Amino acid sequence: MKIAVDAMGGDHAPKAIVEGVMQARDEFEDVTFLLYGDEKAIREHLKDESRTQIVHTLEKITSEDEPVRAIRRKKEASMVLAAKAVKEKEADAMFSAGNTGALLAAGLFIVGRMPFIERPGLMATLPTFDEKALGFDFIDLGANADNKPEHLNDFATLASQYAKSVRQIEAPRVGLLNNGTEETKGNELTKAAFELLKENPHIHFIGNVEARDLLQGAADVVVADGYTGNAVLKSIEGTGVAFTNVLKSSIMESGLMGKLGAVLLKDTLKGLKTKMDYSTYGGAVLAGLKAPVVKTHGSTGPDAVFYTIRQIRKMLQSHVIDELMSASQTSSHE
Amino acid sequence: MKIAVDAMGGDHAPKAIVEGVMQARDEFEDVTFLLYGDEKAIREHLKDESRTQIVHTLEKITSEDEPVRAIRRKKEASMVLAAKAVKEKEADAMFSAGNTGALLAAGLFIVGRMPFIERPGLMATLPTFDEKALGFDFIDLGANADNKPEHLNDFATLASQYAKSVRQIEAPRVGLLNNGTEETKGNELTKAAFELLKENPHIHFIGNVEARDLLQGAADVVVADGYTGNAVLKSIEGTGVAFTNVLKSSIMESGLMGKLGAVLLKDTLKGLKTKMDYSTYGGAVLAGLKAPVVKTHGSTGPDAVFYTIRQIRKMLQSHVIDELMSASQTSSHE
Repeated sequence: MKIAVDAMGGDHAPKAIVEGVMQARDEFEDVTFLLYGDEKAIREHLKDESRTQIVHTLEKITSEDEPVRAIRRKKEASMVLAAKAVKEKEADAMFSAGNTGALLAAGLFIVGRMPFIERPGLMATLPTFDEKALGFDFIDLGANADNKPEHLNDFATLASQYAKSVRQIEAPRVGLLNNGTEETKGNELTKAAFELLKENPHIHFIGNVEARDLLQGAADVVVADGYTGNAVLKSIEGTGVAFTNVLKSSIMESGLMGKLGAVLLKDTLKGLKTKMDYSTYGGAVLAGLKAPVVKTHGSTGPDAVFYTIRQIRKMLQSHVIDELMSASQTSSHE
Repeated sequence: MKIAVDAMGGDHAPKAIVEGVMQARDEFEDVTFLLYGDEKAIREHLKDESRTQIVHTLEKITSEDEPVRAIRRKKEASMVLAAKAVKEKEADAMFSAGNTGALLAAGLFIVGRMPFIERPGLMATLPTFDEKALGFDFIDLGANADNKPEHLNDFATLASQYAKSVRQIEAPRVGLLNNGTEETKGNELTKAAFELLKENPHIHFIGNVEARDLLQGAADVVVADGYTGNAVLKSIEGTGVAFTNVLKSSIMESGLMGKLGAVLLKDTLKGLKTKMDYSTYGGAVLAGLKAPVVKTHGSTGPDAVFYTIRQIRKMLQSHVIDELMSASQTSSHE
C-alpha cells in the first residue's frame, strides 16, 4: 500500500513528519511512501530512500491561507499534490498535519466524496476512562458548521463502520449527543436525527448520550453536528489543559512536603499523562471520502505521525472504505 | 428583603436546605425567609424561628415529574407556592434545588418574563484559572433547546448587567461562543448573532471565543444558545470528573512511594478541589425574569445553599433586575 504524505504541513515540518514516516516505514514493511515537499529539507531527515520517494515542490499551504482559495490557486502545493496522487490512484491514502480547513477542501474537491454521502465529517477517537477504556469515535468535530438530520445519520454509518473495521468493536454502540438521555429531548436537529438513527439498519443505536458521560464510555460512537462536536471537543481539551495547569501550579505553590510528595508521585503523574493522551489512536479522519484522508495536530511530533500512519495502514488493511461504499449504497436516503 | 425558599427540592431536602438557610439567616441580618414545605420535617432542622416563617404544604414536585404539567397540576407544591409568593410580591426572590425543568416553567409561567425579553436564559458563574481568576458568566446553559440570534443578544445584555451589578466587573468583556475566533466563523445562528452583538449598546463585545479558552478567562461573559451551552457545560463537568477519577486511580495503583507522595500532597490536592469548585459563586440564575429565581444542584449541601442565598442577596442589593428592566426597554428589538 502507498501513502501520500504532505511533508510540509505542521509546526515542525518537515522534520517531525519525515522522522515519523521513517519510524513507520521501518515498522511496516508493506507500506511505501510518497513524500511531497522541499526535497533538500526533506533529505536532511531521511535515513535512506528505501520504500520512500520524494516528489519535489517548493509551494506549500500555510496556516494563514484561506482554505478553499489556497487549494484552488496553489496548484503545486505539497498538500494539493498529495491529494491529486490519491485522486489519480497513484496513492491509496493521504496524510497531512497542515491547515485543517485546506485539508477538508482538498479532501472534498480533489479526493472526492463517496457516492450518497452529501457531507463528510471529521472524526477522531477520544479516550474513555471506564474499565474497558476502548475510547470512542466522535464525529463531526467541525468539518461542517450547519448540518441536517440526514448528515448526522450518515456520520453514524461512517463512524460505526470505522469502529467495526478499524477498531474491531463488534457491534459499536452508537449514541446521539444530546441535552438529555430521554428520547423526547433535544433541539429540532437532534429530534429529527433521532428518528433517522432509530431506523438506520447499519448501526446499533443506543439513543441519546450527554456530554458529561462521553469520557466514561457512554457509547463507542458519538454523533453530533459539526458546530456542537467542535465545541465539545474543545471543551474537553480546554478543561484537560486547565486541570493540568492548576495541578502543576498547586504543586509549585505547596511547601517542601508537597514538593517532595510530587517527586514521589512523578511516575504516577506521568502515567496520568499517558492515559489522557489520545494520539496513540491516530489522527482525525475526514470520513465520507473515497480514500483515507487523515490529519494530525499541527504541533505534532514524530510519534503522533507514526501512530497516524499506523491508523491509515489499519484503514487500508481493513478495507473500511469498501465496506462504507457498500453501506452507503443501501443507506436510507439513496 | 424576603426570600421564598422551596424547602423540599433536591436530594437532601429539607435537611440541607434548612441548614443552609439557617447559616445565611445568621450571617445576613437584613434577610428574612419564607420556607415552603412539610412543616414537621422542616422544624427538625430549624434552630429557631427568628426571621423565618414556615408555610406548610405536603405537595411537592419530584425529579421525575414532567415540568410543565407538574407546575400546572400540583398547585400546592412547595416550588409553586414559592413562585406564587414572588409573583404576588410577598417575597422578593426565590430559591430552589429541585427539578430544573419545573423551576424554569415556574419562573416563566408564574414569576413571569421581563418585558421585551422573549426567552429567559439559564446563567451560572464558572471558574477561570488565569491570574485574575474572576470566573465568567455563562448563558444559556439549557433553558432553551433552539434559539434565534435575538435571544443570544438578549442573553448578552442580561449576563453583562449581572457581571456589572453583582460581580462588580466594570466593563465585562462579552464573548460569543464560536468554532473559531475570526469574525467570519460560525454557523448560521452565531454569524447572525455576531452582527447583533456588534451593535448592542449595552455591552462591551470582544468577538468570538472558543470553548477551549473559556477556563483561561477568554471573556467575563460567554453567550451561547441553550443547546450548545448545555453541551459545553456538561463537557467541562464531565472532563473534570474524569480527570479527578483518573488521578485518584493512578495514585491507588501506584506503589508505596507514590502513595506516600499522595499523603504529602494531600493539602495541595484539597486546594485543587477548592479551586475547581464553583459553588461559592452561587447557583444558576434564570435570567430574564421579573425577580431573581435561582437554582442549585439537586445534590447540593448546606454550604452551596448558603452561597446561593448570599448570591440572591447581592442580586437584590445591587438592583440588577431594575437595571436590566431599563436596559431591556432600550434594547435593539424594542
